Amino acid sequence: MEIDSTTCEQGLRVRLCDWTMALFGKIGTNVGKVVDRIMNLARDDPRRVIHSFKVALALTFVSLIYYIRPLYDGFGVAGIWAVLTVVVIFEFTVGGTLCKGINRGIATFSAGGLGLGANYIASHLGKEGEPVFLAFLVFLLAAVSTFIRFFPHIKRRYDYGVLIFILTFSMVAVSGYRVEKIIELANQRLFTIIIGGATCMVVSLFLCPVWAGEDLHKLIALNMEKLASFLEGFGDEYFKLHEEESSRDDDACSKNKLLFLHGYKSVLNSKASEESLANFAWWEPGHGKFKFSHPWKLYLKTGVLIRQCAYHIEALNGYLNTDVQVQSEFHKRIAEPCMKMSSESGKALKELASSLRAMKRPSTVSTHIKNCEAAISDLRVALEASSPDRADIVEIIPSIAVGSLLNDITKCVGKISESIHELSDKACFESPKSTLSSHIIHRGTVKPVSGDSTHGNDENHVNVVIVNSSSLGHSP
Amino acid sequence: MEIDSTTCEQGLRVRLCDWTMALFGKIGTNVGKVVDRIMNLARDDPRRVIHSFKVALALTFVSLIYYIRPLYDGFGVAGIWAVLTVVVIFEFTVGGTLCKGINRGIATFSAGGLGLGANYIASHLGKEGEPVFLAFLVFLLAAVSTFIRFFPHIKRRYDYGVLIFILTFSMVAVSGYRVEKIIELANQRLFTIIIGGATCMVVSLFLCPVWAGEDLHKLIALNMEKLASFLEGFGDEYFKLHEEESSRDDDACSKNKLLFLHGYKSVLNSKASEESLANFAWWEPGHGKFKFSHPWKLYLKTGVLIRQCAYHIEALNGYLNTDVQVQSEFHKRIAEPCMKMSSESGKALKELASSLRAMKRPSTVSTHIKNCEAAISDLRVALEASSPDRADIVEIIPSIAVGSLLNDITKCVGKISESIHELSDKACFESPKSTLSSHIIHRGTVKPVSGDSTHGNDENHVNVVIVNSSSLGHSP
Repeated sequence: MEIDSTTCEQGLRVRLCDWTMALFGKIGTNVGKVVDRIMNLARDDPRRVIHSFKVALALTFVSLIYYIRPLYDGFGVAGIWAVLTVVVIFEFTVGGTLCKGINRGIATFSAGGLGLGANYIASHLGKEGEPVFLAFLVFLLAAVSTFIRFFPHIKRRYDYGVLIFILTFSMVAVSGYRVEKIIELANQRLFTIIIGGATCMVVSLFLCPVWAGEDLHKLIALNMEKLASFLEGFGDEYFKLHEEESSRDDDACSKNKLLFLHGYKSVLNSKASEESLANFAWWEPGHGKFKFSHPWKLYLKTGVLIRQCAYHIEALNGYLNTDVQVQSEFHKRIAEPCMKMSSESGKALKELASSLRAMKRPSTVSTHIKNCEAAISDLRVALEASSPDRADIVEIIPSIAVGSLLNDITKCVGKISESIHELSDKACFESPKSTLSSHIIHRGTVKPVSGDSTHGNDENHVNVVIVNSSSLGHSP
Repeated sequence: MEIDSTTCEQGLRVRLCDWTMALFGKIGTNVGKVVDRIMNLARDDPRRVIHSFKVALALTFVSLIYYIRPLYDGFGVAGIWAVLTVVVIFEFTVGGTLCKGINRGIATFSAGGLGLGANYIASHLGKEGEPVFLAFLVFLLAAVSTFIRFFPHIKRRYDYGVLIFILTFSMVAVSGYRVEKIIELANQRLFTIIIGGATCMVVSLFLCPVWAGEDLHKLIALNMEKLASFLEGFGDEYFKLHEEESSRDDDACSKNKLLFLHGYKSVLNSKASEESLANFAWWEPGHGKFKFSHPWKLYLKTGVLIRQCAYHIEALNGYLNTDVQVQSEFHKRIAEPCMKMSSESGKALKELASSLRAMKRPSTVSTHIKNCEAAISDLRVALEASSPDRADIVEIIPSIAVGSLLNDITKCVGKISESIHELSDKACFESPKSTLSSHIIHRGTVKPVSGDSTHGNDENHVNVVIVNSSSLGHSP
């Protein structure tokens, strides 16, 4: 009997132990998953972690107003507005914080003044006229301000300001009716809001700043690189895939490649983030290589052209997924020029992206564009040389469509190149030190065009005598 | 002398008069322009004007708390939070207002409770431990909450809630250190916030409500119609434009047509607005024909397919602008099937759009898709019949590319149709009363598939004996 109960107890203990282990294991797995997601989020952009600490720092700093006796005596409960301001206006980028901070400051100041004025007038209207007049004003201004927020230009840049304007006016107009010491309170409130706003701006500007302008700059370069990756890979993938269709044992590898090729998909929907970054960049002071008046609008223009190119690539991508069974003579004949068009367009975009990143004038891009044009001529020759049979023509349609789309993409790349050149001019990008190109080199004593015309002849440039003539073709 | 001075005075007066007239004229023109822009904004969407008045009404209503003595005695200065809540959470759509209101309510409640708890613990830590503990908590929670906002899912749906959570916790934790009657204050604040939020929700819900879900529904239908307009116009524009190239006196008319064709451009960048509307629609209660659990996600799926189609149309549009000089025999031969593909795809999309608008199952769309397929076969036959010369093949490239793109577009339309059918199933759209089609009519006693399978055999359907068999092909 005793042995039995011991065995039973042991069994129960083992089961309990197992169950506990399983529970902890399950919790561990779930916690692990969450930790993984957090780590991924932090690894993708470590600035997110820094930003979180920056917000916490600013918030703790302004709460000192409450904790330190002499400061509290000065501001009273209005100190809470500093806390509110920090939480509401601290944005990820410097431009975002400045946009909200400046909007809030100006709106609070103007609406506060207007509210005080309204209170002053109302105080002369007698006990019954006062609330009616103030309520009417609140109604009117709220309606007008809300409507104004629908204007696209206002919405883009001053939306937050208009919101704070209605808010402050209503609060001052309404509370002024009761609180007697209204001016003192307004002063305190404005002052604490300035303290909150200033704290945010200082922390945002001087502690690992995240510049919206720099992000936009990098985004445009990255988008070009994504298109370039596709174009550089497309030729091999489309034409060689068909050639080696029989030896398809490396299916996983091929799928990986396709995944890599699909990086351009994010470019298709990049409009919203580009516009928001450009809008924030407008508020930012000069930083690093970017001046205050950096032509951010041209980035948007380039962005539009890049997306245009991406739409064509999306159409092209459709042909990558279809299983063409036929490997016609014609297909082989046009493969070389098409592959060249694709890879040279890709190279041109990569060159444009890297020169944009380095903020230097693109030098060899016109070589690549010329190579594209040569490939188009080659394609034309190849097409003229071939005479497909009647039955063939249906089968060669995809190949012809691919060629035609590549032709369009080449045009798009040309436009992107022009846009980047315009940007180089407006933003006074440096000329590259050496324009030695490995492709086509002409010897001569061509006087190179100086990048920054205001500097006149730069000594760095005088001793460069070997230049790529075709790369000068695009110089301004 | 007297005459002279009179003349001079008269001249001066005339000039002053002219100048004043010119000034008033200029002011008038500018005011006119602004008024025009306002009128356009209001005319584009009259709900904007109504929304402005709704906000003003809600704001004036909550400010009554301040004006009416018994209410003011109850809430004190905390009444100001009702004003703040209204300004901040009142959004254009019902879903937006509910999203912000519910987020704000829950966040205020939970953060307030947590703040009170923190204050209670802190009060046991002595005079020096209290501020240190509270400041540490504020720092920690602010950092964690700010980081949490970077999670895409949180950002999409609970961003505002997390913001208000940090805000409220900091305010309660910080002000609790000074204000003794903290619980009473918290109660007042929460209550006024509930009043503000409830006012917004009631006004938003019951006074000319703007439903995000309905807007999304209409946007998807409109986007399909825009693509349909392009496709219906493209065939004529591309193939007939070339035929009548000689008689180009109606240049303005042609430009107008092109402008009309370009309506699809807005579809390319509709992702952001679709996602925001779908997100807000998730918060909305059932309204009109939409149930609470309406499958909004399927609208997003359809939206992706529509954009996919728009990308192909964008590539197709490139061929519309090029001036093709050649009017080859080949071009004429493929014109008919291509025009048919284009117009039938357009008709299919228009049918899908109108059936979505009416929330009925599409009935004749499969006819159009079958006509498209027939046109593809026709094109194949036309191509096989033609044998272009060697020189010709370069010139026919654009036509072939157009044909190939139209083929892709037809596939896209097929996918959109499938997606709309899936939506019809999930959302239990009505079956159309009569499926009489003017195109292909088969006589027979085919038993029609009932739209809502849970209702069993609907009496409305039993007497329908003439049905379009091909339209049933797509029925689930």
